[in-house]
Amino acid sequence: LSPHLENPRRGTLVPIGGAEEKVRDAAILKGFVDLCGGEGARIAVIPTASSLPDTGDQYVALFESMSARASSLAFDTRADCDNDDALATIDRADGVFMTGGNQLRLSTTLGGTAVSKLLRRRFADGLHVAGTSAGAAFLSEHMIAYGDEGSTPRSDMVALAPGLGLLDGVIIDQHFRQRDRLGRLLTSLAYNPCVIGIGLDEDTAAFLGPDEKLVVRGSGAITIVDPTNMEYSSMDSARRHEPVNIVGVRLHVLVEGGTFDLRTKEARPPQTPGA
Amino acid sequence: LSPHLENPRRGTLVPIGGAEEKVRDAAILKGFVDLCGGEGARIAVIPTASSLPDTGDQYVALFESMSARASSLAFDTRADCDNDDALATIDRADGVFMTGGNQLRLSTTLGGTAVSKLLRRRFADGLHVAGTSAGAAFLSEHMIAYGDEGSTPRSDMVALAPGLGLLDGVIIDQHFRQRDRLGRLLTSLAYNPCVIGIGLDEDTAAFLGPDEKLVVRGSGAITIVDPTNMEYSSMDSARRHEPVNIVGVRLHVLVEGGTFDLRTKEARPPQTPGA
Repeated sequence: LSPHLENPRRGTLVPIGGAEEKVRDAAILKGFVDLCGGEGARIAVIPTASSLPDTGDQYVALFESMSARASSLAFDTRADCDNDDALATIDRADGVFMTGGNQLRLSTTLGGTAVSKLLRRRFADGLHVAGTSAGAAFLSEHMIAYGDEGSTPRSDMVALAPGLGLLDGVIIDQHFRQRDRLGRLLTSLAYNPCVIGIGLDEDTAAFLGPDEKLVVRGSGAITIVDPTNMEYSSMDSARRHEPVNIVGVRLHVLVEGGTFDLRTKEARPPQTPGA
Repeated sequence: LSPHLENPRRGTLVPIGGAEEKVRDAAILKGFVDLCGGEGARIAVIPTASSLPDTGDQYVALFESMSARASSLAFDTRADCDNDDALATIDRADGVFMTGGNQLRLSTTLGGTAVSKLLRRRFADGLHVAGTSAGAAFLSEHMIAYGDEGSTPRSDMVALAPGLGLLDGVIIDQHFRQRDRLGRLLTSLAYNPCVIGIGLDEDTAAFLGPDEKLVVRGSGAITIVDPTNMEYSSMDSARRHEPVNIVGVRLHVLVEGGTFDLRTKEARPPQTPGA
């Protein structure tokens, strides 16, 4: 019942905090291409979140400059999500990449369609899936739809909605330090401390394989908020827009090479013996 | 990945819309006792949602008047959720009943604790679980935490949060007709039309067995909102508190004996040939 997958055959998930470096040292995007098989890897780009017309083509050009074979899939309406050619492209892909924009464009357009079902099925069978910014937020079962800035949790500062559901038990936030989002992530967990919060800085990614161990890559940090042993949350009695009491959350900030195990809840800095 | 369970061994879920008849003709509560084995059935009551001190004892007395063996478990704090005696009571129970009150009391107190994990494990293995009002809202993976009245969907009129997660792919609302909640249920689905909405009137229950077929019992109706073929939702562009466009939702209203199959999405009125 909605456990972590515990499926050794599933693909690797790569949520990215947005604004990933694309030219000078595109380590994250290159890492995703390598993950998908390197030269000749087939990558399907889903630009649905973006309101700009050329976002998909820009990522296709980037991935092709890295020797991948990429194509962009125009899922603009829910009817588009029944397109057989586009579904066949996903069926043959080694990796899928979802661009930034607005995660509610992704959920309202793809949610419950043949595209969502196919992504879930193929991910369970080894497809790698990356998403940046809105594309990262959309990956998990519970997603932050939108919210307010600030580091103090307050009732009603965040709107949660169902996401794509490739990963249970986490909530992913992005542009984390740049947009001061600790408050809205804490608020998300205060409703029900059954999920781990993952706050991704810009140009920073979590590579999360089927072993449920997350590895940090990129120039920023990932903030892990673990409410497993939370002693108290006042969300049930908080008035709307008022600050919320939270007691006993565990917090980690991890940079390049740091790891966090979603099963054991253990964080390790890079190059620790035994890490 | 977060599919419907497709587990023939799991228990039956009984979400109740609140204010179920307790004395004159307690058909729903008696139906739950029968489901759990009738005379001598062991029922554990979880009154956590309620702020009244005697809610648990009242249900214990009710269930004992129906020849069940009932006990009330005082999970008032997150620390209480590690109590070995209480966990052992759940482990031995034939059924668990969660009372009404505030569903955020349930999620902030039980969420992520040993009680939640045990309920999920035992439900997968045959434990029957009923909940009324707040106890019904808490059962599913995505739960309505609170919201506004009214029949028109509007952005920001509902707050979603993770629930207990015994059932995926549905959102349960209660006191449905009595509190004019069609708008907030439609709003919930407009974020991501990957879930079926189930609106329960007072004194009305859905008996949902492992065959994923829901049967209506009680004096009111169950409103099913099926967005499977939704053509459009404007939630991604709606301004806060403004009405939302939704095109192509399918709606059923079912009374005692009516059924809805969550797998095939087919609704049948009572006593239809072949039903």
